Amino acid sequence: MSKVKVGVVGYGVIGQRLADGVAKQGDMELVGVVDIAPTLSIRAMFDSGQPYPLYVFNEENKPSFQAEGFPVEGTLDDLLSRVNIVLDATPGGVGMKNKELYKAKRVKAIFQGGEKNDVADVFFHGYANYEKGIGKDYLKLTSCNTTGFIRAVDCLDKAVGIERVVITIIRRVADPGDAHRGLVDVALVEKVPNHQAKDLMLIMPHVEATGLLVHVPTTHGHIISILATPKRRIKVDEALQLFSKHPRIKVVEIAKGFNSNAALFRYARDRGNKRADMYEIAVFKETVVLSGDQLFFTINVPQEAVVTPETIDGVRAALSMQTNWKEAVHLTNKYLGLES
Amino acid sequence: MSKVKVGVVGYGVIGQRLADGVAKQGDMELVGVVDIAPTLSIRAMFDSGQPYPLYVFNEENKPSFQAEGFPVEGTLDDLLSRVNIVLDATPGGVGMKNKELYKAKRVKAIFQGGEKNDVADVFFHGYANYEKGIGKDYLKLTSCNTTGFIRAVDCLDKAVGIERVVITIIRRVADPGDAHRGLVDVALVEKVPNHQAKDLMLIMPHVEATGLLVHVPTTHGHIISILATPKRRIKVDEALQLFSKHPRIKVVEIAKGFNSNAALFRYARDRGNKRADMYEIAVFKETVVLSGDQLFFTINVPQEAVVTPETIDGVRAALSMQTNWKEAVHLTNKYLGLES
Amino acid sequence: MSKVKVGVVGYGVIGQRLADGVAKQGDMELVGVVDIAPTLSIRAMFDSGQPYPLYVFNEENKPSFQAEGFPVEGTLDDLLSRVNIVLDATPGGVGMKNKELYKAKRVKAIFQGGEKNDVADVFFHGYANYEKGIGKDYLKLTSCNTTGFIRAVDCLDKAVGIERVVITIIRRVADPGDAHRGLVDVALVEKVPNHQAKDLMLIMPHVEATGLLVHVPTTHGHIISILATPKRRIKVDEALQLFSKHPRIKVVEIAKGFNSNAALFRYARDRGNKRADMYEIAVFKETVVLSGDQLFFTINVPQEAVVTPETIDGVRAALSMQTNWKEAVHLTNKYLGLES
Amino acid sequence: MSKVKVGVVGYGVIGQRLADGVAKQGDMELVGVVDIAPTLSIRAMFDSGQPYPLYVFNEENKPSFQAEGFPVEGTLDDLLSRVNIVLDATPGGVGMKNKELYKAKRVKAIFQGGEKNDVADVFFHGYANYEKGIGKDYLKLTSCNTTGFIRAVDCLDKAVGIERVVITIIRRVADPGDAHRGLVDVALVEKVPNHQAKDLMLIMPHVEATGLLVHVPTTHGHIISILATPKRRIKVDEALQLFSKHPRIKVVEIAKGFNSNAALFRYARDRGNKRADMYEIAVFKETVVLSGDQLFFTINVPQEAVVTPETIDGVRAALSMQTNWKEAVHLTNKYLGLES
Repeated sequence: MSKVKVGVVGYGVIGQRLADGVAKQGDMELVGVVDIAPTLSIRAMFDSGQPYPLYVFNEENKPSFQAEGFPVEGTLDDLLSRVNIVLDATPGGVGMKNKELYKAKRVKAIFQGGEKNDVADVFFHGYANYEKGIGKDYLKLTSCNTTGFIRAVDCLDKAVGIERVVITIIRRVADPGDAHRGLVDVALVEKVPNHQAKDLMLIMPHVEATGLLVHVPTTHGHIISILATPKRRIKVDEALQLFSKHPRIKVVEIAKGFNSNAALFRYARDRGNKRADMYEIAVFKETVVLSGDQLFFTINVPQEAVVTPETIDGVRAALSMQTNWKEAVHLTNKYLGLES
Repeated sequence: MSKVKVGVVGYGVIGQRLADGVAKQGDMELVGVVDIAPTLSIRAMFDSGQPYPLYVFNEENKPSFQAEGFPVEGTLDDLLSRVNIVLDATPGGVGMKNKELYKAKRVKAIFQGGEKNDVADVFFHGYANYEKGIGKDYLKLTSCNTTGFIRAVDCLDKAVGIERVVITIIRRVADPGDAHRGLVDVALVEKVPNHQAKDLMLIMPHVEATGLLVHVPTTHGHIISILATPKRRIKVDEALQLFSKHPRIKVVEIAKGFNSNAALFRYARDRGNKRADMYEIAVFKETVVLSGDQLFFTINVPQEAVVTPETIDGVRAALSMQTNWKEAVHLTNKYLGLES
Repeated sequence: MSKVKVGVVGYGVIGQRLADGVAKQGDMELVGVVDIAPTLSIRAMFDSGQPYPLYVFNEENKPSFQAEGFPVEGTLDDLLSRVNIVLDATPGGVGMKNKELYKAKRVKAIFQGGEKNDVADVFFHGYANYEKGIGKDYLKLTSCNTTGFIRAVDCLDKAVGIERVVITIIRRVADPGDAHRGLVDVALVEKVPNHQAKDLMLIMPHVEATGLLVHVPTTHGHIISILATPKRRIKVDEALQLFSKHPRIKVVEIAKGFNSNAALFRYARDRGNKRADMYEIAVFKETVVLSGDQLFFTINVPQEAVVTPETIDGVRAALSMQTNWKEAVHLTNKYLGLES
Repeated sequence: MSKVKVGVVGYGVIGQRLADGVAKQGDMELVGVVDIAPTLSIRAMFDSGQPYPLYVFNEENKPSFQAEGFPVEGTLDDLLSRVNIVLDATPGGVGMKNKELYKAKRVKAIFQGGEKNDVADVFFHGYANYEKGIGKDYLKLTSCNTTGFIRAVDCLDKAVGIERVVITIIRRVADPGDAHRGLVDVALVEKVPNHQAKDLMLIMPHVEATGLLVHVPTTHGHIISILATPKRRIKVDEALQLFSKHPRIKVVEIAKGFNSNAALFRYARDRGNKRADMYEIAVFKETVVLSGDQLFFTINVPQEAVVTPETIDGVRAALSMQTNWKEAVHLTNKYLGLES
């Protein structure tokens, strides 16, 4: 069977991880990646000795790459002629403009959470609403936070039904190495409900959600406490078992050293994961308790890589590669090493 | 009427604020403060031009103070002969040892949250269980976090009855200027329930509580989200009104710039509050919402000064100055400028 | 003698401190302060119970203040009719626009370091080049960093002559409570020489200067190491004595607890200084050493308040209140409580 | 030729990197690594699928590893029977105790910078004093900071002779994921000279050194400004060329995105380096300038991996594998991929 052809537009924090994720899929071919300037990530890609084919946004971008000795395969226009779908990981707002180019070349596209919802035909999450994405031209992925906690809420919802959730997001305010934003000695409070709770309701309309978001000076993962009201009483052990079986959820123990967002990052480094990345959200085992009949638990969302699996699910949906969500996510997971 | 005589043992972050608070009470006399070394806080006290009478722990401590030209009134033993009660604000564990000295001199004492509960006859909060402290010899105050959120929960409880709470504490990990502890780029997760939830149940045994605590790299206040299950349905406006009327709670608006723990600190600086302190917890108005019948809201706890009012309430209880809690807290509040 | 009339335009971090500083000067009258919106600082000013007369930038700004119940005295235009000079502490670039208004009303002005140099007739530092500012219409102050280390370099220069300096600035990246900028887990390096070294050479053209600036995630003061090449050999003790005698320099000892920018901030809080501010730079005594014939030492620059004294010196110069720099800075210092 | 047999005692931040470094050496065999508890790093090693043979400190440690299913090869005693030399990377002070065990088994050892100097026969740096380590039983490596800047100073010294250096170290206060130490919003100043300057003089006794150390809240590398007084005038270009040719120094450009300690870390992540590590210190090209005849420049020291090459050099010296330093460091570099 021939592989579907995928391009990645924007080789930043998200884009380079999407490229790696696509490159691992046995039924996809990463045709190339696009950027507008020879950034540190582009340099690292070439210095690694195993660069992906590089395209530039337009002709004017070429000299800056050539000055660094980075070979250029062509322009975005060239790439669009060679792919079935693009993953747009450009900064928020740029995707909307790029969409016109994709449309003109009749190439499907998946946008990231930074774009407005109306960029796409459907607001998408691989586990929670795969069916809605099937055959669509334009999908928009949930943001990193939302992708992460929907995994956990959907996991419970599929088993016992969830009526309501209240979340408190302790948001890492910048990614490692990001010198363009940050906070020093400030915990910044946003009004309730946050957009993530509203987004959950768009993806899972049968759940009522509200939540708080507080930005804090960290870079290694969002910590989210979730209080979920189930339709039937669920025990802590049952919840832990559900989480443990989910290929994109890792149950970890504080007592064993997994006591922070940074500990998970360090574990991934020490394990030798590329870029010290993890695709899985983590559930901290010792935080799972009942309050009355409500289940309270806490997760970590590794913001840089967490959207990769669901974005790849989106490729499967948009190109109708699989029409059954279980089959689709299983293949994504298998190629990413998340299940066998 | 003669004033009751109060001493403060330990002139650190908490002790110096207790001293200031006692000094403001029209019916109390601050006899002196005790420390073991000429710290930066002691120096600042003398450099301010308005020092409190200074006592040392024992004779051996005198030379280090004298070397700095800081006059010493006497030893702890001397102070104990001159007071009715001491506020022990020494580092955790030291209070337990000091208690023997207080006992020997038959001086009552109030300990802070860092001591173990069995240091005292009663675990105390001015609003939530004043009666239990009346006439007691040894009281232990709730910690800063617990003091803060009990104010809010008790405020609702007195009005509509609270059955259950789930809290997520985003804990500032060090005080401003503290170079002895800290976190860099880590959000550190503790197992659930945290001790603060357990402490709430000790003070308010009719409430079921659980909660998460996450340490983050900030210094200017704990941010706590609270989900409270009321006995009867309460509207957001009603809750806001209850909070607004409470002398130790300040309802603030994110839209007006009160958008973080640090913004509250800056407000207090710009207002000219001594040490940039606030006694009040803040409720962020735009975070108060309903989830089903549960009330969800977020507070800021200024960890340095927040225990001052409740500690002074403790003096009133232990010395039986007032036998009615409303009368007691009103006097404390009046002298602290929290109500007229 | 009638007092000179001063207005402050922009009531932010710098503006409110300039206002306080002017209000303390026995020979100056603070006519009013100007802002465009009812910020947290404006609110704090009114909540303090002792507000300065408040002017708005223009009529359109009035409703937002009135909605908060903050009385407005008039517009900037009104204020300009009532003052001899304004201190412009608006965000960088705004001062240049405001200058047209000042010119039209023939009001002198002092701009802060955020403006470009050509906004003013002279780039000014009270100690290092007072004479150049005498009688001038428009002065621009050195920035906080530059103001601070010029104090120290000028202090040595006046005594022994300084040929050359090399500085390493460890720059606090945001002010306390600032949620609009910051860094998390990043030490950001700028190219050498930094603008502060260049600025020093503009103010002290006989000194050759270069330097590094590294932004770090702190808020409580810039730490700067300085290597100065004197014209004649100077001993450590002599340097310490020079620094100690300078009214705007405070020699502090690490061994006594002054071991960080934050310790100095805490000292100022505990001392009861308004806003926990210090006008003085600090020299850390234990960092003053010789390397060959070069003097190496480290200072702390409290970025929020440090420019207040030199800005007030600027008022004295521009209005020709004193024609001798020693007399001028002495009066500024006396009224600020820096010398008697 | 048979390989020399090496063990690593302590599998923490440093130990695991030493183990990786030894494993890459074509003329060394990593016999095993030792630890006392199944830490997160041990878990990561096993989860990576390619564990090194694991030894425990003593029999009592075995059950905790076995409970996790981590196979144990033996005890430290067993390991010592199988190796020629151990690299002790235990916490500071433990190495001194372990030395008795090494002595008893007549095994050579190399200690890290956290031990006191008298733990070893020689205080060692691969480039600066290789000869002193040849054939010695016990070597102590310079600490991460010192290892790093000695590379740069020695590089210049070998070419033009260095008389004197003044350094300002902006020290990252904790490693990524370390929740046991840290600073929040504090730049902590130590007295001058720092121990690193003193250490440089022990290794390079012909150079006079002093320096400042300031701890800041970052984790991704020490930033150090260095002012070096050469014996003959050296131009900036010449210095850059010397640095560029050094296999353990990487000249990077701020203009190309290498503008912080964290940018270098991100580059290493994106490049796919294991653990996102770099062995090289970086010289920021745009920071290299002359001040008079003195050379001023700034480096980044990646504190986690930087000591690996020099420690491996130490193995070569202690076991007399090479008696010429150039030959030794070349082999270390070649196997680490630092030169061909």
